[in-house]
Order: sequence, then C-alpha cells, then structure tokens
Amino acid sequence: MSKVHRLGILTSGGDCAGLNAAIRAVAHRAVYSYGWTVHGIKDGTLGLMNRPIECQELSPDLFKGDLLRMGGTMLGTTNKGDPFAFPMPDGSLKDRSGDFVEGFHMLGLDALIVIGGDGSLKILDKLCKQGGVPMVGIPKTIDNDVHQTEFAIGFSTAVNVVVDALDRLQPTAASHHRVMILEVMGRDAGHIALSGGIAGGADVILIPEIPYSMDGIVKRIEAVSREGRSHVLVVIAEGCKTEDGAPLTVAWSGNQARYGGIGHYLSGRIAERVKAEVRVTVLGHVQRGGQPSMQDRLLASTFGVHAVDLVAKGKFNRMVAWQDRGVIDVPISKVVGSARSVDPTGPVVHTARGLGIYVGEVPEEVDG
Amino acid sequence: MSKVHRLGILTSGGDCAGLNAAIRAVAHRAVYSYGWTVHGIKDGTLGLMNRPIECQELSPDLFKGDLLRMGGTMLGTTNKGDPFAFPMPDGSLKDRSGDFVEGFHMLGLDALIVIGGDGSLKILDKLCKQGGVPMVGIPKTIDNDVHQTEFAIGFSTAVNVVVDALDRLQPTAASHHRVMILEVMGRDAGHIALSGGIAGGADVILIPEIPYSMDGIVKRIEAVSREGRSHVLVVIAEGCKTEDGAPLTVAWSGNQARYGGIGHYLSGRIAERVKAEVRVTVLGHVQRGGQPSMQDRLLASTFGVHAVDLVAKGKFNRMVAWQDRGVIDVPISKVVGSARSVDPTGPVVHTARGLGIYVGEVPEEVDG
Amino acid sequence: MSKVHRLGILTSGGDCAGLNAAIRAVAHRAVYSYGWTVHGIKDGTLGLMNRPIECQELSPDLFKGDLLRMGGTMLGTTNKGDPFAFPMPDGSLKDRSGDFVEGFHMLGLDALIVIGGDGSLKILDKLCKQGGVPMVGIPKTIDNDVHQTEFAIGFSTAVNVVVDALDRLQPTAASHHRVMILEVMGRDAGHIALSGGIAGGADVILIPEIPYSMDGIVKRIEAVSREGRSHVLVVIAEGCKTEDGAPLTVAWSGNQARYGGIGHYLSGRIAERVKAEVRVTVLGHVQRGGQPSMQDRLLASTFGVHAVDLVAKGKFNRMVAWQDRGVIDVPISKVVGSARSVDPTGPVVHTARGLGIYVGEVPEEVDG
Amino acid sequence: MSKVHRLGILTSGGDCAGLNAAIRAVAHRAVYSYGWTVHGIKDGTLGLMNRPIECQELSPDLFKGDLLRMGGTMLGTTNKGDPFAFPMPDGSLKDRSGDFVEGFHMLGLDALIVIGGDGSLKILDKLCKQGGVPMVGIPKTIDNDVHQTEFAIGFSTAVNVVVDALDRLQPTAASHHRVMILEVMGRDAGHIALSGGIAGGADVILIPEIPYSMDGIVKRIEAVSREGRSHVLVVIAEGCKTEDGAPLTVAWSGNQARYGGIGHYLSGRIAERVKAEVRVTVLGHVQRGGQPSMQDRLLASTFGVHAVDLVAKGKFNRMVAWQDRGVIDVPISKVVGSARSVDPTGPVVHTARGLGIYVGEVPEEVDG
Repeated sequence: MSKVHRLGILTSGGDCAGLNAAIRAVAHRAVYSYGWTVHGIKDGTLGLMNRPIECQELSPDLFKGDLLRMGGTMLGTTNKGDPFAFPMPDGSLKDRSGDFVEGFHMLGLDALIVIGGDGSLKILDKLCKQGGVPMVGIPKTIDNDVHQTEFAIGFSTAVNVVVDALDRLQPTAASHHRVMILEVMGRDAGHIALSGGIAGGADVILIPEIPYSMDGIVKRIEAVSREGRSHVLVVIAEGCKTEDGAPLTVAWSGNQARYGGIGHYLSGRIAERVKAEVRVTVLGHVQRGGQPSMQDRLLASTFGVHAVDLVAKGKFNRMVAWQDRGVIDVPISKVVGSARSVDPTGPVVHTARGLGIYVGEVPEEVDG
Repeated sequence: MSKVHRLGILTSGGDCAGLNAAIRAVAHRAVYSYGWTVHGIKDGTLGLMNRPIECQELSPDLFKGDLLRMGGTMLGTTNKGDPFAFPMPDGSLKDRSGDFVEGFHMLGLDALIVIGGDGSLKILDKLCKQGGVPMVGIPKTIDNDVHQTEFAIGFSTAVNVVVDALDRLQPTAASHHRVMILEVMGRDAGHIALSGGIAGGADVILIPEIPYSMDGIVKRIEAVSREGRSHVLVVIAEGCKTEDGAPLTVAWSGNQARYGGIGHYLSGRIAERVKAEVRVTVLGHVQRGGQPSMQDRLLASTFGVHAVDLVAKGKFNRMVAWQDRGVIDVPISKVVGSARSVDPTGPVVHTARGLGIYVGEVPEEVDG
Repeated sequence: MSKVHRLGILTSGGDCAGLNAAIRAVAHRAVYSYGWTVHGIKDGTLGLMNRPIECQELSPDLFKGDLLRMGGTMLGTTNKGDPFAFPMPDGSLKDRSGDFVEGFHMLGLDALIVIGGDGSLKILDKLCKQGGVPMVGIPKTIDNDVHQTEFAIGFSTAVNVVVDALDRLQPTAASHHRVMILEVMGRDAGHIALSGGIAGGADVILIPEIPYSMDGIVKRIEAVSREGRSHVLVVIAEGCKTEDGAPLTVAWSGNQARYGGIGHYLSGRIAERVKAEVRVTVLGHVQRGGQPSMQDRLLASTFGVHAVDLVAKGKFNRMVAWQDRGVIDVPISKVVGSARSVDPTGPVVHTARGLGIYVGEVPEEVDG
Repeated sequence: MSKVHRLGILTSGGDCAGLNAAIRAVAHRAVYSYGWTVHGIKDGTLGLMNRPIECQELSPDLFKGDLLRMGGTMLGTTNKGDPFAFPMPDGSLKDRSGDFVEGFHMLGLDALIVIGGDGSLKILDKLCKQGGVPMVGIPKTIDNDVHQTEFAIGFSTAVNVVVDALDRLQPTAASHHRVMILEVMGRDAGHIALSGGIAGGADVILIPEIPYSMDGIVKRIEAVSREGRSHVLVVIAEGCKTEDGAPLTVAWSGNQARYGGIGHYLSGRIAERVKAEVRVTVLGHVQRGGQPSMQDRLLASTFGVHAVDLVAKGKFNRMVAWQDRGVIDVPISKVVGSARSVDPTGPVVHTARGLGIYVGEVPEEVDG
C-alpha cells in the first residue's frame, strides 16, 4: 500500500459527458473511504504548468450535489496543453514538462489521476514516468477508440445525441422526400457514426476506416427508393475523406474551408447523382455536452472508484478499463500509441451490412 | 350547417412537429363525430395538381395508432408548390391554380382543411376563394409568426430543440472557456431564437427584428467575463444580417455561400475582438422534426377538432387560433399578408434584457 | 418609485420545476438592473418564523450557473407553514403571523416576493397587508388552477412527465392487450390529467370536475375494442371520487389507505367489468421535479423580471400573470379564494370529446 | 447450411423496449439477405397454440419504417403461455406442447427465432428439442439476468427510466428535505436497482441478493444528514424481502396486498426511525415501455442479424449473446436454469459501496 495523503486529479483533452461523474467518484472514494485530500487541477495540464498553480481542493461541498448529473468538467480542460510541445505565443513549441512535474511537487501531491483520451494518456504516462509522478489513468473519449476497454467515458452520451438527431431528421426527411446527411464526430475512428447510424436507422454510414464509392452510395439510395421509401438517411464521420481517398483540400473550399466539411462535400456529390433534394446537418459540439447518459454515469462512477483503489494499492501507470460487467486495469503503455478503430470485418460492420446499410466497399474476401 | 360528405386535407410548406397530430384530430373528428370520409392529399398542393391526383382516404387504420406521437407529416409536403406560380422544369413559373381547383372537384370533395404557415394560408385562401373551394386553415410554423394565434403548430417543439442544444453546449463551452454560437431557424422572425435563448440561458440573442452592433456584443461578452464566468452562449437567428444591416453576400463566402451562414460570419467577427475561442453550431433541420412536444400535440389536437367543427358549421375561409387556454377562429384574410414578428419593445425582449441578455441595440426612447 | 434596497424572496407550498429559474430571474433583475440586495428566505414561511431567522443573501455566485436548468427550489419550501395556523408539536394550531412580520422587519427588508400557489398567495396576501409588508406574488402550481394567468410555473413540466409516462405505457399496454391506468396529480383541478391525457393519447380521462360512470368507461373501452385496438389508456386525477361521488373511505382500504388511491379503486372496478388485464401506475412525485421544461423556464424568467419591476414601481399586493405572449399583473385579492378548475363545457374538454375520449358524463344540454 | 424458406418469429414473456428493433433486424436480414419469408406469430406461444393459428407474414411494409424506434412488440406477447403448463379456464394446467409443435408444422415453417427471457428460453428450448423444431434464441429481459450475455434487450432502457425518475425525484426531495423511496422492477435480480441507483445518485440501494438491516439504512441516512445534505434517495427492487428476510405477507397489508409493496413497507419502517418525511414512488410499467435506448436498438439489431445467420448456418438451440463490442452464440442449455443475479462481492456492488451507498450488509470477509 502506498502512503497517499494528497491526490491530484485533472481532465485533459476535449471535454465530454461523464467527466464530472468521474471526478465525483474519485473525490468521494478518496475522501470518505481513504481519508485523503483531493486537489483538482485546472484546465488539464495547464493548471500545473501555470504559476501560480491553478488548483482547488475538492471539498465535499464541491463534489456533492448535482455533479453526477452535470455535463462537461468542473475542472476545465484544454486540448492545447502538451507539456512536451507547448504552443508559445510566437508559434514555437516549448518543452514545459519540467514545469508540470515541478507543479506536482510544489503542491505536495502524492499521486495523480488523469482522465483523458488516448493522446493525453500517452503523453502523461511518459511524462509521469520521466518525472516520477505516480499516476493512474481513466479513459474518456467520445470516439471510444481506446484499446482494452469496451467503453470510454463520453461515448455513450455522444451516440445518444446522434441517435436523437436521426430520430428528428427522419420525419422531416420523409415529409419532404429528401436525402438527409448527418455529419458526426470522429476524425480517425468511426464508432460514433457506426453505432449511432445503426441505432438511428441510417441507410448509409461512412467511416474513416472503410473506403466508399459514390456508385455504392447511389446504388443504396436507388435501392431504398425501389423498396418504396422516398427518403434516405446518411451518416458520415467528420474524418472521412473524399471518394478518391484524398483529404478535403483548401482548393476545394477556398478560404472558407472551415465552413464546409465532408458532409457538405458529400451533399454536393450526391446531389449531382440523384434527383432528390439533399440536406446536410453538422451536429458538432452538442455531441460533447449535456447530461451524461446512464451508461456514462455508471462507467465514470466505476472508473473513479477503481482508479482510487489502484492509487491506494500503489499500482501506477495503469489505466482502468471496462470489460464484461466489470472493471479491470491494464498498463497504459500497452493501451496507447494506436487508436482502436472500427474493425472493417468485425461484428458491428457486419450488423450494419446485415440490415442493408451501405458501409463502404466490401473487401473481396469478405462475406458481407 | 353545410352538407359535407367528403373532406380533403393537406399540409403545405415546411414540415414541423405536430402535423400528424393535427391530421389525426381532423380525421377522428370528421369520421367518428360527423360520419364523413377524409381524403389526404399528398405533398401539399402537388397532390391536387398532379394527374393522376395523389390522394388517399384516411381510414381509421391510418389515423389510429401512433400518429399523435410521430413527427413530420404522413401526407408529405412541399415548399415549392405555389399553384399561382408553379416552378416548371425550364425555370419559368406557370399559373396552375386551375389544375388545383379541378383536382378538388375531380375528387368530389366538399371542403378542404389546409395546415400551413402564413405564406401557404395566404395563397390557398385566395385560391380557394377564386375557385369556390370551401376551406378552413390551421396555422403551423416553427417561426410562430402568424397573427391572432398565440401559438402555431411546430413552434414549441422547435424551441425545445434549441433549448436542448443550449443545455448541451453550455457544459462544453464552460469546460473549454469558449464563446459558443448557436445558429437557429428564423428567416424573418426571431421568436425561436428569443424564446429558446432565454430558456436556454443565452448571454446574447440576435434576431432579424433588432439591429445589433459588434460593440454591443463584445461589451456583453466582457461583462460576463468580469462577472466571473469564462464562457458565453450566443444565439443567432439565421435571418440576421451583418452588423451593417447588409445581407450576407456572395462575395463574402465565394461559391460556398450555402456552407457558411450568419453564424459563421458572426464567429469570425467575434474572434477578431475577443481572446476566447469561438465555436459555431448550425442547428438546422433537427428543429423541424422528431416527436412533437406536449404543447404541440395539445395544440394540434385542439385545432384539428375545431377546424372540422367550422367545416360542419359552414364557416369557411377562417383560420383556427389559440388564445388563453382556448381556441377561436378568425378570417384568414385578416391574418395573412404580414408576419407577426418579434416586438422590439414587447415583453419577451424586455424579459431578455432584464436578465442581462444582449438583444441588439436599445432604441433611445426605450427603458430596457 | 419605491425606495427598495433589500428584497426578500421565498417559495411556498409544494415544489415544482421552474422555481429556481424564477429565483434566478428575480435575483438577476434586482441585483444587476436595480442594485438591490436579494435575500433568500429558507423553507417557505418557516425561514422568517424561525429564530434565528434562516436566510441567505443571493450573491451572483448563487444565482448564476445552472440554476435556470435545475428543478426544485434552492431555498427549500414547505406545505406545512401557514403562519395563521401553524401546526405545533402538540397538534394544536397557533397564530404565528406576528413572528413572520417580525422576521421580515428584523432582516430590514423593504419588500417581499412570494412564489406560491393559490393557497400560499391568499395567506401571504392577507398576512402582508395586515403586517404592512410590501409584497408581490408569482404564481406556481403544477395544477395550473390560478385565475387570470394562462399558465403557472410548474404546470408545463408536470404535463410533460405525464405525456412521457403515457408514451411509455402505450407500447407495453399494446404488447399485452391491457387496460393501463395512470393516476396523476390534481386534488381539485383536472388540468394535468386533461392536457396530459389528450397529448398522451388517452382513451378515458377522469377529472374531479366531471362526474363519471362505470358504464361510460366500459362503453368507451368496448368501443376501442370494436375499432380494432386491443389496449386502452386511462388517465385519472388523484382527486377523483368514486363512481357514486363519494371520497375513498377508510373502510375501503383499511389501515393501508394511503397505499391505494383512486387509481387502484378504478382498477378493481374496471377489472370486474371487462375481460382485459388491468394495470395501474401512480406517477406521484416525479411530476414535481426534474429539469424545468422550456415553457416553465420562459414563464419563470418573465415572471421574475416583471415581479421585480412591480416592486421597483411600488405596485404591491399584485400577482404577475401570463396572457397572450405577454405578462400582466393583477390584484392578488381578485385572483385567490377560488381555484380555476376545468370548465366542463370549455374548449379543452370539447377537444377531448371530439377525439372520442370519455371525459365523464356529458350534461344533457351540452353538445359534446 | 440448412435449407430454410420460411422462418417463424415470436416474442415471449413480459414486453420491453427493443423487441421491435430485433424483429425488424430479423426480418430485414432474412428477407433481403437470404430471400426467406418471415412469419410473425402472435402473442408469444399463444399464436401457435390457438386455432386458427394467429400469424402474419412480415412483409417489408411491416418491418420498414419506424419499427426500430418503437417500444413494445408488434407481435404481442404474454407471460401466461407456458405450453407445458397452460392455464385453463377451470384453473387447471394442461400440457399443450403438442399444439405448439403442430402449429409450427401447420405453418410449414423451417425454423423459429424466439425472443425471450431466461424462463421463456428454457421452456422453448426444451419444447423445440422435443418437437424437432429448429430454434434460435435472442435474450431479452429488463432484469438483465441471463447468463453469458453482458446485456439483454430491454435492460438499458429500463435503467434509463429509473435514472430519469431519480433525476426528477432528487430536486423535489431536496426542496422538501425528504427521504424519497423509489421502488423499481426486479423480482429476483437487482441489476436495475443497482445500476439505476448508482447512475441516479441514490444513497441506499436494496436488492434481493443482499440482506439489509434497518440499522444500516438509518445509519446511512444519518450520515448523509451529518454531511450536510437534508434529503436522501433510496432505491429498492420490488423483489426485496422485509428486514427479517420474510416475504411481504397478506397479514401485513390485509386484502389490499397488491396495493402496497415493499416500497411502502420500507417507507413505514423508515418513518418510524427518522424525523424526515418519507415518500414512495412505485415506478411500475413505465420501465418496460417507450422508445428503446440507443444501446437496446444496437443490441437488438446485432442480435437479430446474428440469429438469422445462425439459422442460415443450421446452428440451432443456441442463444446469441453480447460480449465485448461483439456478438457470440452459446448453447441455450448452458445459459438457462439459473438467473444471473447480482454478485454481492462483484465490481458493481463495490462501486456502489465506494461511493458511500448502503447496499445492504457487508459480509464479514469482504473489504467493502
């Protein structure tokens, strides 16, 4: 058993639903079960690098009440705070890892719990090992692309938002006989698009992991029409490339690049090929926020308690993970470095194809 | 009492939540209370202009069940079907009002119920008068800009969607200390933005009816910051113009005009003035669809029953309307022609300003 | 204009959704627009009668943030605090109105805003007049039975909960071919049952204002069956009496009276008459709580701002009220004393009957 | 590969959310991928035992559209249809398994997919083996007590309903400083209570698997009070026994037994011990119905496709199951016979205790 008296906690990377539930669980477990004090570091890694250090003791007044039900993170977060390559005002990158470790020691902390995604966990695992900071990780990412854990915090809520949007788009698509495109989050991994699309009744789901063709899309739209339905729902992950596999280029959208993403590209391409009106919705930031889903609250609560238990047992540089109605822990080093993307021949893609959904081209050897 | 045996019904213009609830109420009242048959005309005015006419008798099998709870319109609709100026494939506009009236008589209908917004009701009131079609109108529009009625079908659900989005954007804005802009529907009227913004906790609400200044917006953002909050919620109606009162021009967004609306314009302008990160969400079509709210179901049910009662009494060219826990009816001619926009000196704007929300410039004579 | 520096505020009677939104609006308006301090009195009238007085200044830290979105009342409330007839431990009732007025003056308050229902407003209007306490009322009650105002805070959210329950009960009723009874709140007024029942697709709605017969109910259930539907939804307000117009007696349910209300009574009676399985759900306290609906947030915000404006103008013993997209104010004395119950010949009952819903017996002279 | 042309499908036992999504997936996969016809048997096992057989071919008209989003089962179901012990009008039980098998053959079916819980699957596995009916099972039960599968259809939605209720009860409990008891489903297994209670912020969770004491409950309530919170949330599964481990007896509640369950018993017991007001809500049938959650839709879709694939491969008497982002199948005989109850020393109970929740007595050897 390690001798812990002061526990630090930070959230890192993009926010998502369930972070506050995890903070609450960590604080509750540490304060009431172990008698430690818990110190909330502000704005991800920034709180420890800034001087004065930005940190707040998490007294019961703060972690009681409605924290379980609230979206976002009460600690604040940033996705621009890599201590090894910190962006300076002049545009250069500076190694500020020393500041981070110094901040940890200035606070007199004994251990650190980091709630972050694949990228954050990788950086902080390395940093904490270098700096001698005992650290435990909790996986969060709406993309759900962390290895070894069935779910990461935030995924379930994000998919709920996608399904809710499809439930709203379906009736208006049907009323106007339109092709409705919904662009959802997922730069590298298509889990949100795939799960959300299946649960929301999409006809076409495009994800970064599987190449697609306009012919394939049009063929599916025409089949839907032949089956007697006059509207089509298309879900596309923001990280999808053009039909040719090229990223969207500046040339395509001029200096307004950020205003039109892959959803609008696809809209134009589909409109060239089918007679129906095509409309696009870019779901954006609503996928991150709001009250966490039941599943995210349960996951975050479980992760928080188990992470504190790991600290108490002196098991560091490990990440908690969900597997079959339970929680395990794994070495962070074995988890990070590659994202857990959608398996193009896996069961979820198979389910989608089994429902007639076009999910990009089927490799020749696969029986879709 | 008029002798009605066959009642026609159509939905016209953009779809919204509650149309099916209204169709159900009309059909139920007409079939079970009066013993008529009800004939659903497809795709707004198109169904009567097309040959063969597209129409379906609404038997109980169709209007029973879950219709009350379903978004959109089972009849289909269009916003490109003005019979007086029908868009032809060659781009010209043709007067097809004769086809519409002919269609009505070919079906042997005795009266017509039209569920539509200000524009549709105006056109159909004129058309029905000219063609001798006994007609009653039911107001629907998410914009809620129809005179004489406190609510039109679809408004409540649309505002709910806006509030739901703000409830989701607030935590992510707070976590990242961002200015979050939400662009909502409302080309000419700002009711959605105003009601949604107040109920969703916005700090700035911009609507077409009230000019704004970047200075005013920035001043509010800075005040929020001084009050100790690091994030800001901005709601803007899609119909807002630039700070100078100019509509967004092609020149601004090149050939990608449709990809960047007023929300993105505002984002750029705010980012020039404040240090915080600014993000935009364009809510779009999700505002139209999905399960109707309690209020829209109640409204639609009331309107449907009362509209049929008007037909039974032979009171035509009238629109049903909601006033103080009840339903009245008014001559359509007195309602249409101008939209009921937000009163810049009215109680809702006053409420917003009373909560510290920036709602554009205050006229000098007004005590905001 | 009155000279106000210190404003008191309390919530009285049963809690409901939107109270916090009203408190927030009052505090925001008073502090930021008028520069007053606002003092939140705890637990309704108790806070002023207790010694030491229980009260807390509402600084921006308290009324900013998520208060708009939170259910219940941060001030606490009670429905056992009538100062004229305060229940003592020995079971007697004591006049403690003097304590209340004394408490008001001990705090050095200049005016009081009371958020309460018909009963609370009546008591406090009388008390404040007697004690020389300048007071403004804001109507709240899930029952929506306050005169002069189209809506009271809490009604909309409560009806939403009822509709949500009916949306959940309908599929399980249909799957098992059952008669589903939903008992909802409403001791004297049937507004929740009536609006919720219409919007939720009920077949039978029983309210305290209209007598019913088992024959009428059974006739409707049999008609539904003949129309080809094998399940029935029944909504009954808790305040309904037995078929004979008698209140549920102790004799009926023995010493377990509180465990079985009118819903269970009705269940037994229906089960005697029809072959289908009958099930009961008593919705209970979930109707009071949770996030306020869009409409309740908008209403509460408007009421709060306008109530403070009345105080600023020195217009006391008045209640704010909602009428046609706006807010007015009326003398409390003209509002209280009788509840605004459902009009048995009014438009909402007419709508229900127009949809084939059994809403109790139709008076002979009424054309239902 | 088996030669299947005609596939039968039935839902058995209590209904839940996601059944229609599973039916849709089965029908889609069978009709479009394999070219079979699919025949929906009405009301569980009854459809095959009744004469004439009650069955309907599931044409695309029926399984397209909104079926994915709809609660309940379009086929109907019953929990009183055990073919081995069928309840006759005279109260006796009759073996009608022969009728069931005969019905299957009369329809000329080649295989049967059964969507049911532990009990239904056990009976039908035995029956189908005896009768030579090739059968595949899909697990559904809101109780989530089927072995080998992480989730059964319906569980996720039911827990969502519980969490939603707790989110509504918390503010009203806080406003009135009450102990709020929520009685939820779960006759033998406490998964709903446990997951729902953790995610909904309960302070006490009582489940059938773990004995509790009034002392333990009161101790927790007093601790919450000492920690400065004046309200308490208690969740109890309907299958819990009295403190002494005895089932609720008729003697306790007289002839009104069905009107007061364990929640009301607990209410009385707590009220004897603590000063706070205690209130009870019995959630009941709303837990079964309504739109399926995202997770239940995804699960049902996956199960449906995979079950049809098993039929196509001729792998019978197997049940599909969810494990770690994927789907597997297991012999039904290995799954049924015992329910998968909550592990008193497992990770979910540990999480609850780690958050300070009283979950009944801690065995001496357990480090809670």
